[in-house]
Amino acid sequence: MKGECVEIIGEKINGTRKRVAQAIAERDADFICQLARSQAEAGAAWLDVNAGTHPEQEPDDLVWLIENVQAVTDTPLCLDSANPQALAVAIEAVDKTPMINSISGEPDRLENILPLVAEHGCCVIALAMSATRVPETSEERVAVIHKVMEATRAAGVLDEHIYVDPLVMTVGTCLQSGPVFFDTLRAVHAAYPEVHFTAGLSNISFGLPARSYINRAFLTLALGAGLDSAILDPLDQDLRAALLAAEVVLGRDDYCLNYTRAYRAGLFD
Amino acid sequence: MKGECVEIIGEKINGTRKRVAQAIAERDADFICQLARSQAEAGAAWLDVNAGTHPEQEPDDLVWLIENVQAVTDTPLCLDSANPQALAVAIEAVDKTPMINSISGEPDRLENILPLVAEHGCCVIALAMSATRVPETSEERVAVIHKVMEATRAAGVLDEHIYVDPLVMTVGTCLQSGPVFFDTLRAVHAAYPEVHFTAGLSNISFGLPARSYINRAFLTLALGAGLDSAILDPLDQDLRAALLAAEVVLGRDDYCLNYTRAYRAGLFD
Repeated sequence: MKGECVEIIGEKINGTRKRVAQAIAERDADFICQLARSQAEAGAAWLDVNAGTHPEQEPDDLVWLIENVQAVTDTPLCLDSANPQALAVAIEAVDKTPMINSISGEPDRLENILPLVAEHGCCVIALAMSATRVPETSEERVAVIHKVMEATRAAGVLDEHIYVDPLVMTVGTCLQSGPVFFDTLRAVHAAYPEVHFTAGLSNISFGLPARSYINRAFLTLALGAGLDSAILDPLDQDLRAALLAAEVVLGRDDYCLNYTRAYRAGLFD
Repeated sequence: MKGECVEIIGEKINGTRKRVAQAIAERDADFICQLARSQAEAGAAWLDVNAGTHPEQEPDDLVWLIENVQAVTDTPLCLDSANPQALAVAIEAVDKTPMINSISGEPDRLENILPLVAEHGCCVIALAMSATRVPETSEERVAVIHKVMEATRAAGVLDEHIYVDPLVMTVGTCLQSGPVFFDTLRAVHAAYPEVHFTAGLSNISFGLPARSYINRAFLTLALGAGLDSAILDPLDQDLRAALLAAEVVLGRDDYCLNYTRAYRAGLFD
């Protein structure tokens, strides 16, 4: 887990966001291409693409997104859908092997999405939740991941293709959100040393003031616990600066090269 | 280790700093009183007082500092000297039981300073270093602390009065400075669950650009590892904001009360 290997999954092309939903509805290719290009240039290792939640339109919308994104960048895509039909169509449209976002302990997802992952050799995000809920304790979340890993291994998916998301609850309503996340991550890492870890960070601070401070603290502590990927806005300079600084402090940035390079590029201005 | 219990040791009254040395030489009481008042108001639990490094003047200078600081605040003092004579005089001048900064594995310090600590029931900072050097590995640092703890226990000093400083090297020249610090802290905590931990943070980033990012990342990760005290500038709003955010994420700030209170007081503006 070297500094340069923390993989950022760019989160901005997400049809559950109003402005992106509008661009999809209006087939505003320029807007989508700009989101793709700017995130790729900012260092995203993957670009999440989510076409929103209209089941009948989702396959068409997702393919439209993919074609536009691929027209301006060769960064691999993270196909973000719970719909196996949309994913099956989307996988045929991508130039590079994608990541799939996501499976979980939900039997339907394991049954319908996991075969696609296995057949195409995809990486896949595995959420530490069951069909019905996000477990409160790390022990329960780890139990879900054991079940998921049993299924992925049975399907022939390599452990190193799994990106476990221990799940981030809002700390304003769940005080132990951070410790439960860190404990889950450490326990899963101990059991499956080859798997990666990712998370959508910003949910931690929902409803609190001065959210960026909480988000940075959470990212820093999660990197310390072993997070090696994150779903975030790669254009958020504060988060990227926090990430680079954490990698220095964790002894993962040889000669502080990434840090000083980012400094010279103006990231800390 | 509740959020409100991370003890800040205010570092600003330090005679090795040029401006403070000048104030001591000129007996500029206003300057010293202002440093004391502002740090106390910013929430320092202790105020470090260091009279500089002139052995023959140190006892007089230290007492002069103490008298001025005590004139404006009742925050307890952290007497910062390697000179047993200066410390003996200073202990007689303080109103409240002070912290002593510091002992280490150096036999002279253990022999001459530890009896003062024991006699007066002081808290004391214990550096994880021997007489000759700062050990490179956490194993060697832990071995030093074992030796120090043997001496403090033999002298009758309570474990809870010990503040172990695992020692912060500059990451620019010692890439593993952070991990060695965290590993030392965790190992000492496992062996001596009652001891506290403190550190001077800013050395981590010496020589690097954009130091505040590194300092905040280090503070955040150190709090995650169990640091419950820190020697820093309590007027540094960025560091205090990082500290409060880390305590939220670590689940130690009930109802996020300290965080939201600091927000309303303008700390994050």
